[in-house]
Order: sequence, then structure tokens, then C-alpha cells
Amino acid sequence: MIKGVHHIGIAVRNTEEAEKTYTELLGVKPSHSEVIPEQGVKATIFHLGQCEIELLEPIDPEAGVAKFLERRGEGLHHICLEVDGIDEELKALAAKGVRLIDKEPRLGLAGRIAFLHPQAANGVLIELAQRV
Amino acid sequence: MIKGVHHIGIAVRNTEEAEKTYTELLGVKPSHSEVIPEQGVKATIFHLGQCEIELLEPIDPEAGVAKFLERRGEGLHHICLEVDGIDEELKALAAKGVRLIDKEPRLGLAGRIAFLHPQAANGVLIELAQRV
Repeated sequence: MIKGVHHIGIAVRNTEEAEKTYTELLGVKPSHSEVIPEQGVKATIFHLGQCEIELLEPIDPEAGVAKFLERRGEGLHHICLEVDGIDEELKALAAKGVRLIDKEPRLGLAGRIAFLHPQAANGVLIELAQRV
Repeated sequence: MIKGVHHIGIAVRNTEEAEKTYTELLGVKPSHSEVIPEQGVKATIFHLGQCEIELLEPIDPEAGVAKFLERRGEGLHHICLEVDGIDEELKALAAKGVRLIDKEPRLGLAGRIAFLHPQAANGVLIELAQRV
């Protein structure tokens, strides 16, 4: 069951500059940064009420975020929805014929995560996450 | 002061189809639809925990969402941040040199709203909203 929006991911070229911009806009400092080698990004996280804003800078030119930046430039990259029971959720979506990038959950910054294909959601890259 | 994420706006070509897709993905039906003539869109709203997801279909070929669809196709269009005191917030942002689309708040679906320029936020179109 989908509980709400966990975070919004924003692709940026330079975390240091983007961090300054977003600190000024949001009126809060980021809580922390983390490198996620499997996703080829450095993520900088701002807590904003119930939601998080993640700035994503590629560290690997072959990673999805690097290719997104090449193709579309900086901007909104994905939304992450928090779920209970991600295994059941993925099975239910697959059974409905929803196109998935990850058929099985894997470990990510937000917990056990999986991405749906943007074609499944009108061009929106959706990540599901179950907190661990 | 920014309190959290009010909603995420998604540009779609056909609300009827997108509504079916998102009802299936989110596991909830939309709460309502509304035409916003000033923004040239029909908006369909899903409540998701503390946040809303807004599907935006253009009803005016000259409107921002119509142009976005032409240029980039369907996908994430904007995020809306809830603020206390939108007048003071806009003044403070302008004083810091942040580029604004709306220097004064106007009435929108989410309350008293104003858009910042995407160039002010690494390509992200940010709406501020104060509930009325």
C-alpha cells in the first residue's frame, strides 16, 4: 500500500552550487550527503516536513542520472513513494502488466527500493521504497 | 517559512487515460478535478499522505503546460512547496536576487500561489503556496 511521497529527486551538475541554491530557497541546510555507488550518484538530502528533497549529482558517466543530464539538463528526475510491503506491491504491479525496471527490491538510500519504468507512469520515473 | 511539499504536478496529454494509470499505481482514486483557466489546465488531484499528486492536462495551447508537453513530452512538471507568509517569502527571495515568475501572489488551486523561475532552482519549476 502506498503511504505517501518519500522524496523528490533532482538531477544537478554540481552539488556544491546546488546545495547553496537550495539551502537559500528552502531555508534549511541539508541533513547529509551520501555516495550511492550502485546508482552512480552523490545524493544530498534536505528534510522538508514529511518529505525529502534529494539533489543527485552523477559520479559515473554511465549512470542513469548522468544520461538524464546529458539528454534533458538539470531538473526534476524522479519521485519516490513510500510503500508497506514492497515485495507484494511489485508482484501486484507486474500482475497488472505495469512495466518495471526492478522486478525485485534492492537496497537504496531510502530502504528497500525498486524503480518503475517511466513508460508506466506518463513519463515519470517512480521509485518505490519500504523503510528498513 | 517553507513547511513542506504541497503537491507534485505532472504534465499529461490525456487526463482520462492518465487518471486510470495513476489510480492503478497509487491505489487511490482522484479526489476531484478542476479547470484552472488562468493556468490553461485541467487539474486532477490525488491525495497521498501529506502530499498531493496533480495531473495537468492543457486546455489552452498557449499555456505553460501545453508548451512543456510540446518541448519535453509528458512527465514531472513542477513541485509546490507550502509556505507561511507567502508575501514575506517572495520579498525575501527577490531581495536575495532569486528570479521569480510571479513577484506578487495570485489565487491558484492550492491557495495564494507564486512561481519561481526554473533558472532559480537548477531547472526545477517551483510553486509556492499559502493555504487560504
